[in-house]
Parts: sequence; C-alpha cells; structure tokens
Amino acid sequence: MPDYQAPLRDLRFVMDEMLDYPGHYARLPGGEEATPDVVAAILEEGARFSREVLLPLNQSGDREGCLLEGGEVKAPRGFKEAYAQYVEGGWPSLAADPAHGGQGLPHSLAMVLNEMVCSTNLAWGMYPGLSHGAADALRHHGTEEQQATYLTKLVEGTWTGTMCLTEPHCGTDLGLIKTRAMPNDDGSYAVTGTKIFISAGEHDLAENIVHLVLAKLPDAPEGSKGISLFVVPKYLPNEHLPDSDGNPGERNGVTCGSLEHKMGIHGNATCVMNFDSAKGFLVGAPNKGLACMFTMMNAARIGVGIQGLGLTEASFQNSLAYARDRLQMRALSGAKAPEKVADPIIVHPDVRRMLLTQKAFAEGGRMLVLYTAQMIDIVEQGTDADEKARAETLLGLLTPIVKAFLTEVGFEATNEGVQVFGGHGFIQEWGMEQLVRDARITRLYEGTTGIQALDLLGRKVLMSQGESLKAFTREIHKFCQAEEGNSQLAEFVRPLAKLNQEWGEMTMAIGMKAMTDREEVGAASVDYLMYSGYVTLAYLFARAARQAHAALAEGTDEAAFYRAKLDTARFFYQRLLPRTRAHKGALEAGAEPLMAISAEDFGLGFEI
Amino acid sequence: MPDYQAPLRDLRFVMDEMLDYPGHYARLPGGEEATPDVVAAILEEGARFSREVLLPLNQSGDREGCLLEGGEVKAPRGFKEAYAQYVEGGWPSLAADPAHGGQGLPHSLAMVLNEMVCSTNLAWGMYPGLSHGAADALRHHGTEEQQATYLTKLVEGTWTGTMCLTEPHCGTDLGLIKTRAMPNDDGSYAVTGTKIFISAGEHDLAENIVHLVLAKLPDAPEGSKGISLFVVPKYLPNEHLPDSDGNPGERNGVTCGSLEHKMGIHGNATCVMNFDSAKGFLVGAPNKGLACMFTMMNAARIGVGIQGLGLTEASFQNSLAYARDRLQMRALSGAKAPEKVADPIIVHPDVRRMLLTQKAFAEGGRMLVLYTAQMIDIVEQGTDADEKARAETLLGLLTPIVKAFLTEVGFEATNEGVQVFGGHGFIQEWGMEQLVRDARITRLYEGTTGIQALDLLGRKVLMSQGESLKAFTREIHKFCQAEEGNSQLAEFVRPLAKLNQEWGEMTMAIGMKAMTDREEVGAASVDYLMYSGYVTLAYLFARAARQAHAALAEGTDEAAFYRAKLDTARFFYQRLLPRTRAHKGALEAGAEPLMAISAEDFGLGFEI
Repeated sequence: MPDYQAPLRDLRFVMDEMLDYPGHYARLPGGEEATPDVVAAILEEGARFSREVLLPLNQSGDREGCLLEGGEVKAPRGFKEAYAQYVEGGWPSLAADPAHGGQGLPHSLAMVLNEMVCSTNLAWGMYPGLSHGAADALRHHGTEEQQATYLTKLVEGTWTGTMCLTEPHCGTDLGLIKTRAMPNDDGSYAVTGTKIFISAGEHDLAENIVHLVLAKLPDAPEGSKGISLFVVPKYLPNEHLPDSDGNPGERNGVTCGSLEHKMGIHGNATCVMNFDSAKGFLVGAPNKGLACMFTMMNAARIGVGIQGLGLTEASFQNSLAYARDRLQMRALSGAKAPEKVADPIIVHPDVRRMLLTQKAFAEGGRMLVLYTAQMIDIVEQGTDADEKARAETLLGLLTPIVKAFLTEVGFEATNEGVQVFGGHGFIQEWGMEQLVRDARITRLYEGTTGIQALDLLGRKVLMSQGESLKAFTREIHKFCQAEEGNSQLAEFVRPLAKLNQEWGEMTMAIGMKAMTDREEVGAASVDYLMYSGYVTLAYLFARAARQAHAALAEGTDEAAFYRAKLDTARFFYQRLLPRTRAHKGALEAGAEPLMAISAEDFGLGFEI
Repeated sequence: MPDYQAPLRDLRFVMDEMLDYPGHYARLPGGEEATPDVVAAILEEGARFSREVLLPLNQSGDREGCLLEGGEVKAPRGFKEAYAQYVEGGWPSLAADPAHGGQGLPHSLAMVLNEMVCSTNLAWGMYPGLSHGAADALRHHGTEEQQATYLTKLVEGTWTGTMCLTEPHCGTDLGLIKTRAMPNDDGSYAVTGTKIFISAGEHDLAENIVHLVLAKLPDAPEGSKGISLFVVPKYLPNEHLPDSDGNPGERNGVTCGSLEHKMGIHGNATCVMNFDSAKGFLVGAPNKGLACMFTMMNAARIGVGIQGLGLTEASFQNSLAYARDRLQMRALSGAKAPEKVADPIIVHPDVRRMLLTQKAFAEGGRMLVLYTAQMIDIVEQGTDADEKARAETLLGLLTPIVKAFLTEVGFEATNEGVQVFGGHGFIQEWGMEQLVRDARITRLYEGTTGIQALDLLGRKVLMSQGESLKAFTREIHKFCQAEEGNSQLAEFVRPLAKLNQEWGEMTMAIGMKAMTDREEVGAASVDYLMYSGYVTLAYLFARAARQAHAALAEGTDEAAFYRAKLDTARFFYQRLLPRTRAHKGALEAGAEPLMAISAEDFGLGFEI
C-alpha cells in the first residue's frame, strides 16, 4: 500500500525561507493569529490526519466506489466517519470569515492542507472540496439571509456544497444550458432540468447538500448573458417552512438520477442530478450568473491545480521508496551494492530522470501554489489598494497556469511513478495506477487544459494588451537584474533572463498575428500555457536556488537539504526547461498547419 | 460505443503506393501468392472480423474481466467463440511456414491484420498474440519433434502459447530468476518455480497452452549466462505418454495461482503461474536460453509497437467523430455552422491540434510498422545475403523504436482522445478512457521504454560503432540528395536533411562522452529514442509527401486524400517535429544533473 509523509520540511523551506510567509501573515489583517507556532501545529495535525485517516481509505474507496440505492448515495466505507472527524477538527472553517463562524486564518493555509488531502485521498477530498466554491459564491453574491442560512453550515461543514453547471449537451459552452427557473409566488423559483458530472451531488457524509445551480429565467436573453445562479438545497432549511429552526426540513425536488462509471476517483459520487420544480433562491442579480460562476470557478481551478500537485507528491514518494528497494541490474559504471544480488534501481540514470522529474514538478508546483496563495490572501484580506490590484492581476494570470500546468505535469509525474514500478505499476495492489486514473480527471474538470489556455492567452494576456503578463515578467526581470552579478546564480539567472524576454516577445508576436486572424490565439494557446508554466517554475527555482545558496553560505546543519534543492533546480533547468524549445517551435508555426485540412478530409484514410 | 473502420485506404497508400508492397511480395520467395487481389481480400476480411466480431466484445470484456475458479480461468463472455471463429478463418496460420501447416503468406501481412485486432480488442488480441513469440522460439530453436508436437498446434491455433520470463523479484534482470529445472530420467526436466505477469497463462479459449519457460539447470552458471529455455505444456501431448495420438493428455504440474487486478486489458488473463515439478523439455542448448528468449522478445516487441499504433487509430477515429458531432462555442473567427446552436468543436484550432496529433501518429506509426515489416519479410524469407544482412541491421535498429516510440505516442494519442471528449472522456461508457488504460501497459511490458532505449542506444547503435544507425541515415541522406532540387518537397527535405545530419553528430557526441562515463548512455537513452522516433517519422512523412505530390501531378479523382496527406505531413513537421529540440537539449545536458544527488538526499523534503 502506498505510504505518505507530508512534505513538512519542503513546506517550511518555501513558506518560511523563500516566500517569507511569517512576514506575509504578520502584515495580513487577521493573519497575525497565524504565528509560526500555530502554522506549524496546524500543518503537523494536517499531516497526521491525512496520513492516518485519509490514506488508509484511498485504495479501499477506489475498489468499493459509491452505491446508489433508493435515491440515496452511500460513499465508500469509512468516508463518512473520516468526514465527521474532519468537521470535528474544525478543518472546514479554518480559513473562513469569523462573521460566518470561521476561524479567520489565511486562505493560503487551507491550501497547504489541501495538498495533503489530495496526496492521500483525492476522491474523499472532493466531498468537502466543492464546498469552498459554493461558499465563495454565497459569500460574494448571496444575501445576508442566504449567508446566515447556508454559508454558516458550509463553513461548519455540517452541510456540503456542489456546483451544478454542466448539462448533457454543454459543459464548456454554458450559454446553451436548458435548466429553467420559474418564479414562484413566494419569491423563490421552481428549478427544472438535468445537470451531469456533479461531484458529491448526493452522498451520506453531511446532513444537507447545498447546490449552486445555473439556470435560465423565463425571460432570459439568449446565450451566456441569460444565465442566473440559484441556491437549491437538498433539504429546505426550516426558515423556509412555518416552524423555523434553521435545520434541514422538507426534502426538495432535487434527486440523484444515476452515478457515472468513471476511470478514476471512484470513491467520489459523480452524479446526474435531476431538478424537478426544485425550490431555489436567486443568488446575485438576475442574468448575472456567469460572474457568480466565475467566483466559484476560480477557487475551484486553483483547487484542481493543487490536486495535480498532491498526486505528483504522492507518486514521487512511493516511486522513490520503490527505486531504493527494488534490486535489478548493475549500474553501467559498475556495481554500487556488490553485497546484494543486484543494485537498487535508483542507481540507473534513467530511473533518476523519472524520479527527478517527479521531484522537480512536486517542489516546483508547491512553490507555484504557495506563491499564488499569497496573492489570494492579499486579494481576500489585504487592505492596500495598489497591492490588492497587483495581486488580483497576478492571480488572474496564474490561475490558468496553476490549474492546467500542474495537472498536465501531474499526469506526467504519476505516469512516471507507474513507469518506475515497471510491470508492477500496472497492478492495482501497488496503488500507482490509481494515482494516474485519479489524475486523469484533473486535466478535464473545471475547464479543460484547452479552456485554461484560452483563458490565459486570450482573456488574461491579450485582452489586457499584455499588461497582466508584464506585471509578472517585470518581477522576474527585477529579480534577474538584482542577481546579475551573483556568479553562483548565473547558471539560473542567465537562461531565466533570456526566457523572460522571449516570453514577452513571443506574446507580442502572437498578438500581432491574432489581429489579422483570431484563430491564431487558439492555435498557440496550449503550447503558450505550457511554455508559461515552465518559465514560471524556472523563476521560482531560481529564487529557491538563491535561498539555498544563502543558507549554505550562512552555515547550516542541513547542508544536504539545500544541496539537494540546488540539484533539483539544476535538473529542472538542464533537463526540463529545454521543453520550452518544443512549445515555442510548435506555437510559432501558427494556425495554418491546424486549419488547412477540412473537417471532411480528416478521415479519408479510413472512411471509404 | 466506439466504432471502427479499418484504415484500408491509408493502408493501400502506404503499401501499394509508397512502399511498393506488390513489388516487394513479388520478389519475396513464397510471397508471389500475396497478389494485390489476395492481399485486398484478406485485409477486407480482417476489417470485417475485427469490426464485427472483436469490437463488440471490447467494452464488455473490460467490464467483466476474467474469472479464476478451481484453477480454471474463464475469459469474458464471447471471447472463446470469437477465438473459434479466428481459428476457423485460418488467421493464426496466415504467415506460418507451410512445413508446419501454415499458409506461407508474408509476415508483414499478419502485422497489418494485427493492427486491426489491436484497434478493436487489445485484451482479446493478447490470447493469440503471445503464440507468435512461442512459435518463433520453437521454429528457430526447437527440435523437429518439438516442432511437430507443438508448433503445428500453435500454427493451427488450437493451442496457444505463453512466454514465462518474469518472476516476482525480477523482470528486466532475468539473470536473477529462481525457477529451477531438474533433469528427469527420461530426458525431460522437472520445472519448479513461480512466474508472474503471464499474459494468457491460463484460459478457456484453446485446448492446450504451451508455456515457453526460462529456468536454471542445477549446474547453471550465475546470472544471465545460466538461463535455459523449456517448453512446458499445460496438458502433456500424448506422444509423451504410452498411447500417442498427439492430442492433449495428462495434466501437467503447471497451474494458475491467481489473476492480477490491473489498470487495463481486463479481458486478458494476467496470471501468476506456479510450476510444481512440471514436465518440461529443453529448447535449444543448455544455458543458451537468453538467445532463444530474444527470438521471442523481438517479435513480441514489434507486436507491442503495433498495439500502440492500433490504439492510436481507434482513439483518433472516435474522437474525430465526436469532434464533428459535438456542438460547443463559436469559432473565434466567427460562426461556422450558424444554423446550429453552436459550432462543432472540430472548428476550434486546439481541438484540431489534438486530432492532428492523433492522425499524424496513426499514419506515421503505420508507415513505420510497414517499413519495418518489409525488413522482417526479408530477414525471414529473403534469399539475397546482402539484402538480408542490411534488413537485419535495420530491423535491429528499428525494433526498439517501433516498440517504445509507438507506445509512448500511443499513450499520448489515446489521452488526446479523452481530452477531445472533455469530461465525457473520463466516463467509461464512451470507451475512450479504456483505450488509455489499455495503452498504459504497452509502455511497460516486453521491456519498458527505458529498456528499449538502452537497447537502441547502447546495444544497437554504440556497440556497432554507429554502423547500424548509419545504415539508416545513409538511406535518408540518399533520399534527401535525390530530392534536393524538388522545390515542392523543400519544406520537408531541408529540415529532414538537417536533422539527419544532427542525429549522426549527436550520436557521435554521446559515444565520446560514454567512453569516459558509461552512465552517459543511460542518461541520454530515452530522449535519444524519442528523438530518433521523430526523425524516423519525419523521413517517412517526407516520402509520403513525395508520393502525394506525384499522385496529384499525375491527376487523380482522390485529390482530397492526397492533399490531406500533405496537410498531415506539414502538421507533423511544423507542430510535432519541434519536440526534437526538447529531447536534444535534455540529452545534451548529460548525466551530471541526474547523478549529482545522492540516493539518500532525494527525499529530504518529506523525510524528516
């Protein structure tokens, strides 16, 4: 069975040494409670919970899956009890506003814990995971009454939330939704329609489920301008009934029609949800549901990026253990463990290439998430307007990178994990193939990689005339300038400065091309996103290297840790960063090689 | 449910127009029977069989899996009947030697049919699939009596074969095997040990199963020099019993201990096989089992490459159909199907990028397999010694590329298929995720990608002082020279000539480095293999483009087909070939970034 240790030392490196989280928290209104001691205690408790409670349920949950019986969904054995412990431990309320019963700690802290959950049991993590998006939507767009009724329960964790967007005929293109909301006499709405792919749409972990549902009002304009958001609880809270005590009351007209059979995350209930004149309440203004939806989506997208990171770390740790243990062949340069029948496979350079790829993506991904998490803290809790505006811009730019890049490389990393195990990687018992199957969904849900790439290049970068990108490349440029004379860092700073400049120039060139042909944006998008991800990680690895050199120069009894960090940064620069050449080459070829062939002619090799 | 049409038009293009298969068959001793009419009839019948018989059993086989009861394995419903039809149709004997009951048609023809089997039901295809390796070993190394007893039954298909190599503690490093063979008084051996991952090790499709087993004689030298090969039948044929009629007789001491639970190919029984003083017969000389094993392995490796190709084609066809059908968003450059609620997603450049990636790997892989298949024909049936020697060299070089490159890109292509389907790709019902799960094993079995890469760079290229590579690069060089003045082809020939030269220079540079540090071979190997795969496909696409231009110049009523071929070649050159830059950059960084970190320090981020 796979094991897991929360990467506490690496977290401390990134948070305390590299990104000055103690200072960040001290400056953050409400963040002063997150003292280093408190943070350390919370992380240790999270490490314990994820390893001792969630990890043992990961393989069994995958094997058992969920059961739909008489309209009720049973999550796998142990999931309900683990969730009860989670609620009892106060985890759901950690970063929520005290006004809604939260503990008021910074959001970034919840994100760190989320990595641990994703490393140990992604399917379980999706039950509380969707609550954040629902809570965010209510926090930003709900009425005071809605917040009192639903948000406090979501914060407590006694109720969970869902996001009901997708329908059978539309996922990306939500303008096409058919779910209708007819006004009732009492100010509520009767919501009718079918939603699919609803994660945790129905389950037995919580008392009640709060569905955030996109639907159309009778007089709604066509397309995405006519979408409204509704809150539709599984059980109507008692305040909507004559004898109000706020607890779940009458069963609402929303039911789980069936469960999807999926490639992975078997322990999570992916539901078809039927709304049959279900009582719903408008959230935000009529026909402004798309904006509310983006509030949910952005949090969810970062969350999915963290899933990619969590799975990367889990796969890395277990393939590392296997590579140290499995004896097979001798090193090409001569026996390394002559006392054994063969050398452990970690001596082989290609096994090391795979392990280092996982390691670099785990550590690089962690830096990216924690860097982004600071922006979220500032956007959510900051007070300085300039700082907030800058954080918002950077967050907008980084969100699609976090989501798509970390899930793309997470899929690669979990596959490297299988590869390190050889044939055993394909066998369920070892747990490595589950990580691949679970990782596969992360490239798809909350907007595919293609959709993230369009968001990055089209919406964020080009629509801001490149300004959002410049907010970031200026920071990288400053870093490179500051370290220009640092010969120890030259191996990182020189290639980084070149790439950073190239990033801007390449963006300009795409923008120019897009002025005459809009298809150039889509044609460049995914390669552009991947390129951006590599450059972003290069920047963060250069900062990590600076930190490691500083620690070594100061003197430390953890020299091996800092040297390993430098080795990982070097591996990333020398063996992974060349991939930017492939992405640049491909995207510079532009739209022509994609658009030349007609839709009819694609299949002429077999359609005869 | 996924559909499938055998790519008969594309096969005709590659076989008849590009690689002159009619001429090749006419020159091949025994090949004269493979007239264009016969070949066309066989391919059409194969297309029908795979689509009508195998495809309907693919999803049900995945869901049902295999059942072990009382030592007997039941394959999924319908598998046995499909196999009976396969035997009745004479498919197993197609390319076998008439001396053993075969039809004597060229091997390449069986390989083409194999692509169709792999596209429609990989798990089923693994039952007859392993027989080829077993038959090859007996054909090359078996005694006349062994051939009469076992080979004729394998050729008929009434018996199937296995390759029993792997043990729990060793797969790659077969020198470590523990299975023993003790001489019996009658010249046979008592084989005792446990083999794992034995595909089709036990099942109910055939009367008898012929296991080819690696084991050690009592006095065997240590390591891989002490391995011998044995044939161990499930039922001892009657000739080994007093009243001989050659039919299966007494049950031998070889049993299936358990079935593995796997990520994919659920319909195939992957068995733990226990040999308990099972009666076995030595094949080839004592302690020379490794050479016999390579005879089995080489055929099997090409077969696995074809699996990668088959899955690529299956995924491509179904995602193409979906992309034409699914309506979502408008094209960025304006509505393309204004009469519909949205445009079919095939209008979007990034969807086209994914489809074209699949298409290029399917068509490129097919060219590579058919090019390699001609070498196999010549090695097996040719008479000209020089031609045979050259074919053998090229076959040795191309085998690891076919195996590893086509499975690596096959995994990518099946994943692109899931991606085109969006969230639906993750749902079992659509069948796209099964292709990914089935494809995942192809990167592992019969030698992982890492092992293939060492075979290519270490054993084939460097051990021949680069001569085996030169045999191929010279051919490419000649092609480029011949087309130097062809301005129509310049877009292909110029980059190809450059790459071809670079390939040789890069190889030299690795060879030089390897002289001082053997680890440089392993450090470069996988990137070298992938680089080699892209250049090889570039060569074949350039030839395809030449053929397409020639057909267009001649005048044809299939102009759309040839223009689509040119479009695909251009896509490959412009959007996929830049990946060589990433591989070159990574491998030129050498071993240092892989070897610097110590095995102990890998885990310092979490091991505290």
